Amino acid sequence: MSTKRHYEREFVRTFFTTPTAVEGESDSAKMLRSAAQVRGIQAPDAWVPDNEDATAPTMRAEGVENIIDVVAEHGSDYPSEIHPRVVWHRESPSTRYQGFQQMLEIANPENGAVDHIDGFVIPEVGDIDDWKKADEFVTIIENEHGLQEGSLSMSVIVESGEAELAMGDLREEMGKPSNNLERLFLLVDGEVDYTKDMRAMTPTGELPPWPELRHNTSRGASAAGLIAVDGPYDDIRDVEGYNDRMTENQAKGMLGIWSLTPGQVVEANKAPLPPKTGSWLLELADQTIELEHVDGQHVYDGDEIGLEQTGEDQYILSVGGDERELDEDELNEELLDLTAYVPSMDDIVDSMEEFEAAKEAGKGAIAMTQAATIVIDGVTVELSNDRMWDEATYQAAQTPVALFQDVYQHRPDQHEELEEMYGSDVVQRATNVGA
Amino acid sequence: MSTKRHYEREFVRTFFTTPTAVEGESDSAKMLRSAAQVRGIQAPDAWVPDNEDATAPTMRAEGVENIIDVVAEHGSDYPSEIHPRVVWHRESPSTRYQGFQQMLEIANPENGAVDHIDGFVIPEVGDIDDWKKADEFVTIIENEHGLQEGSLSMSVIVESGEAELAMGDLREEMGKPSNNLERLFLLVDGEVDYTKDMRAMTPTGELPPWPELRHNTSRGASAAGLIAVDGPYDDIRDVEGYNDRMTENQAKGMLGIWSLTPGQVVEANKAPLPPKTGSWLLELADQTIELEHVDGQHVYDGDEIGLEQTGEDQYILSVGGDERELDEDELNEELLDLTAYVPSMDDIVDSMEEFEAAKEAGKGAIAMTQAATIVIDGVTVELSNDRMWDEATYQAAQTPVALFQDVYQHRPDQHEELEEMYGSDVVQRATNVGA
Amino acid sequence: MSTKRHYEREFVRTFFTTPTAVEGESDSAKMLRSAAQVRGIQAPDAWVPDNEDATAPTMRAEGVENIIDVVAEHGSDYPSEIHPRVVWHRESPSTRYQGFQQMLEIANPENGAVDHIDGFVIPEVGDIDDWKKADEFVTIIENEHGLQEGSLSMSVIVESGEAELAMGDLREEMGKPSNNLERLFLLVDGEVDYTKDMRAMTPTGELPPWPELRHNTSRGASAAGLIAVDGPYDDIRDVEGYNDRMTENQAKGMLGIWSLTPGQVVEANKAPLPPKTGSWLLELADQTIELEHVDGQHVYDGDEIGLEQTGEDQYILSVGGDERELDEDELNEELLDLTAYVPSMDDIVDSMEEFEAAKEAGKGAIAMTQAATIVIDGVTVELSNDRMWDEATYQAAQTPVALFQDVYQHRPDQHEELEEMYGSDVVQRATNVGA
Repeated sequence: MSTKRHYEREFVRTFFTTPTAVEGESDSAKMLRSAAQVRGIQAPDAWVPDNEDATAPTMRAEGVENIIDVVAEHGSDYPSEIHPRVVWHRESPSTRYQGFQQMLEIANPENGAVDHIDGFVIPEVGDIDDWKKADEFVTIIENEHGLQEGSLSMSVIVESGEAELAMGDLREEMGKPSNNLERLFLLVDGEVDYTKDMRAMTPTGELPPWPELRHNTSRGASAAGLIAVDGPYDDIRDVEGYNDRMTENQAKGMLGIWSLTPGQVVEANKAPLPPKTGSWLLELADQTIELEHVDGQHVYDGDEIGLEQTGEDQYILSVGGDERELDEDELNEELLDLTAYVPSMDDIVDSMEEFEAAKEAGKGAIAMTQAATIVIDGVTVELSNDRMWDEATYQAAQTPVALFQDVYQHRPDQHEELEEMYGSDVVQRATNVGA
Repeated sequence: MSTKRHYEREFVRTFFTTPTAVEGESDSAKMLRSAAQVRGIQAPDAWVPDNEDATAPTMRAEGVENIIDVVAEHGSDYPSEIHPRVVWHRESPSTRYQGFQQMLEIANPENGAVDHIDGFVIPEVGDIDDWKKADEFVTIIENEHGLQEGSLSMSVIVESGEAELAMGDLREEMGKPSNNLERLFLLVDGEVDYTKDMRAMTPTGELPPWPELRHNTSRGASAAGLIAVDGPYDDIRDVEGYNDRMTENQAKGMLGIWSLTPGQVVEANKAPLPPKTGSWLLELADQTIELEHVDGQHVYDGDEIGLEQTGEDQYILSVGGDERELDEDELNEELLDLTAYVPSMDDIVDSMEEFEAAKEAGKGAIAMTQAATIVIDGVTVELSNDRMWDEATYQAAQTPVALFQDVYQHRPDQHEELEEMYGSDVVQRATNVGA
Repeated sequence: MSTKRHYEREFVRTFFTTPTAVEGESDSAKMLRSAAQVRGIQAPDAWVPDNEDATAPTMRAEGVENIIDVVAEHGSDYPSEIHPRVVWHRESPSTRYQGFQQMLEIANPENGAVDHIDGFVIPEVGDIDDWKKADEFVTIIENEHGLQEGSLSMSVIVESGEAELAMGDLREEMGKPSNNLERLFLLVDGEVDYTKDMRAMTPTGELPPWPELRHNTSRGASAAGLIAVDGPYDDIRDVEGYNDRMTENQAKGMLGIWSLTPGQVVEANKAPLPPKTGSWLLELADQTIELEHVDGQHVYDGDEIGLEQTGEDQYILSVGGDERELDEDELNEELLDLTAYVPSMDDIVDSMEEFEAAKEAGKGAIAMTQAATIVIDGVTVELSNDRMWDEATYQAAQTPVALFQDVYQHRPDQHEELEEMYGSDVVQRATNVGA
């Protein structure tokens, strides 16, 4: 039996939280109302009206009403999924009961919102038995309100050691007849509370990186057919840091991330999509430098490496104070070791199409050539690199394209921006490749 | 049900081992006797008379007698906990039986030591069933000697792959009626034997860093209400390395560490406590530099970055060969990205008090401002940074303060040194905040 | 009960795959036939005729016949183990059935190959129940063909999140009477398909490093008495990168690696063996530099650190722009912090012999001295470092020697090359130490 994903969306790039009720405003639902009307690249894949940490405890009753009002009014036009977060705590039965009551009310069909609610987000879960308690409440709610069993999804915030361990049991537990854990959708890391629960600390108070937690969340999601989402990135001014974090996460198979601001939503919606144009990187021991693209050539004029042509087939390449005399072939070899290519969407689709054609013709593996003109210190070198593609390479390369296709299928409100980004020809080919 | 810690100490900073019997001395218990009389910052949170690896096999019978003698005489005045380590091995029934006999003798009330013994340390444990064998022996010993069931704690050294895996099952196993695993106290990594068990090797013979083991130990402790302690740091001359290791561990939630020498005990008792004075860091790509504190200003005169004022609102900032012209606001922004503040104990208590007052007044989140005068290449810049604090930030910041309070409550012998370190005003406020 | 290894080989350095049938050749078994006749340092510890990914789907029936032909002819003279890889997939019953049929045919004694087949490699396994399906097929095959139960080993490729999780259950599952999982031999990571399964991606398309997967594989192997092997290193021209990867793996206890080419086999057969001659390293913040060995002295003439003698007992040492005036003792101390020694095979055997003699004489711990003449900027310094060795240090140091002895015992075809590498005196002493 295969690991099935039970939801429409195969990928979730963005998880955006909005306070449900803000005190002191003439309309406490103002932020919610505004977030409900965003479209396109600024709208997240999962919108989370947040009736937990983002909303003051005294405002949460009003928050429930606001969620109902706003989702009833704007939900049918909302371009992606809506997953309110309610209160929950593995160590507090009263908080759990409040969470149940909030969900019961929000999901009441008489209130007119539930048709546009895709599921609920449960924070502060503990071990797997605690996840089952939340699942059972949702089952009861579906039953009480005459909703189809399993129609409401459940996403959890992993912010305790117990919950991290529970992700190792999910695959096994999800099959059991006594629960409906198949409703699980997102596994979201919550590093602030996780840090508290683990009693970790750093000199400056910034969050530890928790690479193992992120790996375990991604693996748990992979093994159980769910989607892994990283927690909030606090330093909202630091766009570069946010993107670096996403690149790290992508290498772990964690393709989604929490967004705290509309600006972060835009960054995170774009981050896992391949770039419009390819680029060459110079990969040195202590840094990676992108070569400048000028008139079809890739130029480096910095001080980190130097190149001089000293004869017809003679070059001197200096890297970090180390000078070497090389002929053209050796130079090519050396530069291939020092450089890497970041393929564009167009490149990826090209390679996939080429491999598909080769497979059709009965070949199991073909060489893909990547050629470029590199200019270092004014010296021009024609680089050419062959990489073998077989079925496994092909399928691994497919992840960004599958993500693109999932976005294209489920987010018509982003079509225009995607076409602006890539051109309609590339969009169309990317939509069809690998089908 | 909450994850309860079953012990008085919520934190253990230091785990200090002493050989129980040294051959060739007129008094084989000399080291033990001397270690039993240490007080204050030189005394560890957990003192471990070590009747295993630190003591020659032929001396271990004498070691048991020495433990009894020394603890019976000095135990009542010892300022913290005493946890003898006995022999044990997951693969040797005869070693396990020896460990049982050692514990049976040490815990015999007629010998007069057991009143001052807090528990035993079991090395070389295997999978969870092996932990249960040790637990069962302690239960039998308690019963035979008329001690209260569960009154002796058990700490384990994790030095095998099996034991690492067992930590994932602890939370579940601890609840079962057929064992008394609730007596568990410390999870201590033992990297030397772990390296052997994993058959790992490094070119220079130094220990591998084992980040995943430390994560899993910290997580296991968090999920089961126990305390995580890192293993020995061999290079006892390398104080900076020892402190770097502790900073790394703290970011993993592993706040305790083994100490091999009194000097290491002092370092490790201090390491998790916030500093007396705050400091500013320059965080560059490849290094972190602490600015020098001179007359209330934070000064940098090195070559890594440069700053020049070229007009009234015009600056040139150079970082790693990259020069940028900036106005004052842009400069401020840029420097905030490049710097970080390490708060003092005083700062942390201030922020917590401020947040508590805000919460009292009904606010869920407030901005904390960190301001400083930074001087780079003689150019003075007033930096000011706001950070949002909400309940989660507050609770995460509490870890070092909770540790301080635990130390203050249980280690009166360190009061004087803590007051010397922080001043009595800060000590008093830190003792009361967050209660 | 101890964690037993059920196989002759305690270590596997190299896992070399060969396509079983290549289309368009006059002899489709040509590569197989050639690989079967390699000897010595070019022959892997585990040779894997690969009837899965390396062979086109349409050629796999012919591949089975080729395996049988070539192994029947050359198997009796092959110097190490032979483990064909068949097809398998956790999500495809038809692929699993094909895998069964392939194994049934290869293992048929009438075909004359099975006497030289040590086991099978099963790719794409899922959770532990999936491993049991493959194990059950092998049991049935053994029974049908009148082979001894358990005589065929089973190795798996870990290339899914489920399989990674399954490694945590192995130790427990292997004891159960309803399976024969004791036949397990190698746990091999397959990072290409794992990356696809985890839906991970990197900008350049290169594989993520997956440190946690490698840790978990090594730990799983350690806990269950198996051998951990890393997956293929794609960039076959990058010998330095391949060696760096192996050094990383060794620090994780993963001593084997996949080899894609005969050149990689040679590198990987040598990598875990200690070097012929020791060397001194300069360990700086951002790089490690090996000192040049000239006439018994270790010389550094680079720019990273500088040394000047300014008086009889006065030196100026400059490290990264930081100058310090030191006397000879301080200089010694400082240089010991900056340097590390990579011991040769000879050094390791010396130290072990010395410790064995000390233990014989009743000592539990002795100091091993490492002395050297270091020359920096023409200034000569006599360095001397003591390191305490106890039983644990001794046993940890034994890993490379145990590996050497395992190689020496099982690979007579490599004796000549080992003696060329180390000299016959060192080989003989290394063969006998620690027995």
